[in-house]
Amino acid sequence: MAPSRAAPTALRALRQSHFPNNLSRRSISAYGYEQAKALILPNHGEPKDVLRLHSHSISPPTGDAVTLRFLASPINPADINQIQGVYPTKPTWTTNLGTPDPIAVGGNEGVAEIIAKGSGVSGLQKGDWVIMKRQGFGTWRTHAQTTSSEVVKVDKEGLKPEQVGTVSVNPCTAYRMLNDFGNMKEGDWFMQNGANSGVGRAAIQLAKLWGYKSINIVRKREQGHEDLVRDLKSLGADVVVTDEELRGKGFRDQVKEFTNGGREKIKLALNCVGGPLVNDTAKHLAPGSPVVTYGAMSKQPVQLPMGLLIFKDINFHGFWVSRWADKNPQQKEDCVKEILSLTREGKFQDIPMDPLTWDYDTKQDELVNAVQGTLEGFRSGKGIFKFGNT
Amino acid sequence: MAPSRAAPTALRALRQSHFPNNLSRRSISAYGYEQAKALILPNHGEPKDVLRLHSHSISPPTGDAVTLRFLASPINPADINQIQGVYPTKPTWTTNLGTPDPIAVGGNEGVAEIIAKGSGVSGLQKGDWVIMKRQGFGTWRTHAQTTSSEVVKVDKEGLKPEQVGTVSVNPCTAYRMLNDFGNMKEGDWFMQNGANSGVGRAAIQLAKLWGYKSINIVRKREQGHEDLVRDLKSLGADVVVTDEELRGKGFRDQVKEFTNGGREKIKLALNCVGGPLVNDTAKHLAPGSPVVTYGAMSKQPVQLPMGLLIFKDINFHGFWVSRWADKNPQQKEDCVKEILSLTREGKFQDIPMDPLTWDYDTKQDELVNAVQGTLEGFRSGKGIFKFGNT
Repeated sequence: MAPSRAAPTALRALRQSHFPNNLSRRSISAYGYEQAKALILPNHGEPKDVLRLHSHSISPPTGDAVTLRFLASPINPADINQIQGVYPTKPTWTTNLGTPDPIAVGGNEGVAEIIAKGSGVSGLQKGDWVIMKRQGFGTWRTHAQTTSSEVVKVDKEGLKPEQVGTVSVNPCTAYRMLNDFGNMKEGDWFMQNGANSGVGRAAIQLAKLWGYKSINIVRKREQGHEDLVRDLKSLGADVVVTDEELRGKGFRDQVKEFTNGGREKIKLALNCVGGPLVNDTAKHLAPGSPVVTYGAMSKQPVQLPMGLLIFKDINFHGFWVSRWADKNPQQKEDCVKEILSLTREGKFQDIPMDPLTWDYDTKQDELVNAVQGTLEGFRSGKGIFKFGNT
Repeated sequence: MAPSRAAPTALRALRQSHFPNNLSRRSISAYGYEQAKALILPNHGEPKDVLRLHSHSISPPTGDAVTLRFLASPINPADINQIQGVYPTKPTWTTNLGTPDPIAVGGNEGVAEIIAKGSGVSGLQKGDWVIMKRQGFGTWRTHAQTTSSEVVKVDKEGLKPEQVGTVSVNPCTAYRMLNDFGNMKEGDWFMQNGANSGVGRAAIQLAKLWGYKSINIVRKREQGHEDLVRDLKSLGADVVVTDEELRGKGFRDQVKEFTNGGREKIKLALNCVGGPLVNDTAKHLAPGSPVVTYGAMSKQPVQLPMGLLIFKDINFHGFWVSRWADKNPQQKEDCVKEILSLTREGKFQDIPMDPLTWDYDTKQDELVNAVQGTLEGFRSGKGIFKFGNT
């Protein structure tokens, strides 16, 4: 690794001697080389055991290459499963970052700014914001070099990096599930568990915009439960219930009240929790309706309710936004564009976030702890790296 | 009940005095009255506890009415669940058969002959064979009177009553599942458990006719296993395996061999057993494929395989032929017609049967035992009432 580190170290010394602290480090790219840092893994394992901060330099882009400076990269649960090796999409192993053995960069989602481009690049300018076209890019890094076909330009006008950096996974998942399942029409209902998740909050808001109504299931919080209910209702949730309430005897009658005496139909259920909750939900659906699973947070198995399956034609599907995006790249771009446009108009709110600023001097431990903290679920909002003075 | 029995008893005395034993009792309908017997239930319960044989008389048909003499009525597992009260379709409760309290007639499937019709009936003639249009008709009886719109005429040419009497449920279930799920094309594969069931045998044969290939899962029999395998292969099964073989380590490699190195795809699974077998099967399916459940013979729960659901897009559906038939009456007629036409041409074999002849003098105990025996699974073939000298 020594040879690849030599140049960056020299550059850093140069920067530290020539530029005052309040100047962006980016001015150094006048020399044409970028000093980059990345959270990498040499093999699968627990994030705290395998992740480390790696420095390398990026040469000036030629041909179809672009150099990116990352602005914001979220820490999604799937990123952690990918590091652990239990996710079907593997990270991209490479020796291109100057390591003797192949490593991969963590993270799959994010937004970056074009800071340099090769002479063969068209359609992208310095200063443009881009998101990643595919899973496995490795977004937990300050800079990257790639080809222009691997990124998708977004209109940054009026948007914050954390809004653009979190649009690809959760909002698109909610968008497609509400569109592609249950043949929903204005006035129809859907139910969802994990309603406070990124997907859940996106689904509440999109449903409201499209005229669908929602029954939202959340865990009972010891503290702040009423605040959470109020929060989800302010996003557009019609009904918020706890899983205990869902299982309660009177719930069927309540559902009848919500749905105008049963004249309005519940035509879709979204599930990211699993366990008995799924059957408790499925029995309120109109005959022929789908239950769409996009997560398994409780790690509890779901038992197929045979009677509902055979006699009520309730059907069970999975949704994985990565597979969908790979099959439908243009639809994915359209989805991103529409969500960002709604965000810009103030009609779509991003989720509560718990950002960690990643500067040039941020230590490995801080970064790794941010990932491990997301895994252990003790964050107050979505974990996201916001890149500062890199 | 006494009044309703008076006339039949008189008629029976008359018949016994006037007609030699080898003459069909039907000649008595010259008097215009039919002496009928039916296996009825006064309420839900175990068949052996609630079923009894009830006699009543049927007056000459007027207007749109037809009088039927049953020829063959199978004993389906669903009929027994219906008697037990655990089936979603309830039997038809009525006092029309001369009982003081409402009773229902058991059985849902069967074939009958028109023996008399009202002056307003068109399109049906004496001697025509008919099947029931709907569930809940009550087919475990010697005679019935109904309106012509409740029955569907079938072309009896070249067919045996037991072939026509068993066409509506099992063969139509197989037919629709192979057609409506998995987007099957010639050369595609499907897997099914319970391959020796009525539906299973029908699916093997239809698949063969349509150019689909099948992997058929059966329980290992202590005796006669090789005969069973030979039997299913003679119907057109490409592969027959036991559930142990399915779970075996080398099965994935075997599947690869069957499917031409994996170039041919397994695009559908049919399930009537439940339990862990379903997951063992689902993992061999091509991404995006459906598992269709039409029964739950093992009474073991099925755990939704979350990884397959989300990442491989395996989806889970139920199929209930009654619901389908109610929604698609014309398609049901077409399906029946096609299966019977294949039967007539010798291309479709009915399943092994264990008939009980139901004559005028057959005792209640014999009939009830035939039903209870189906429930307890100790029959050598499908239980079916074949009506003789009624």
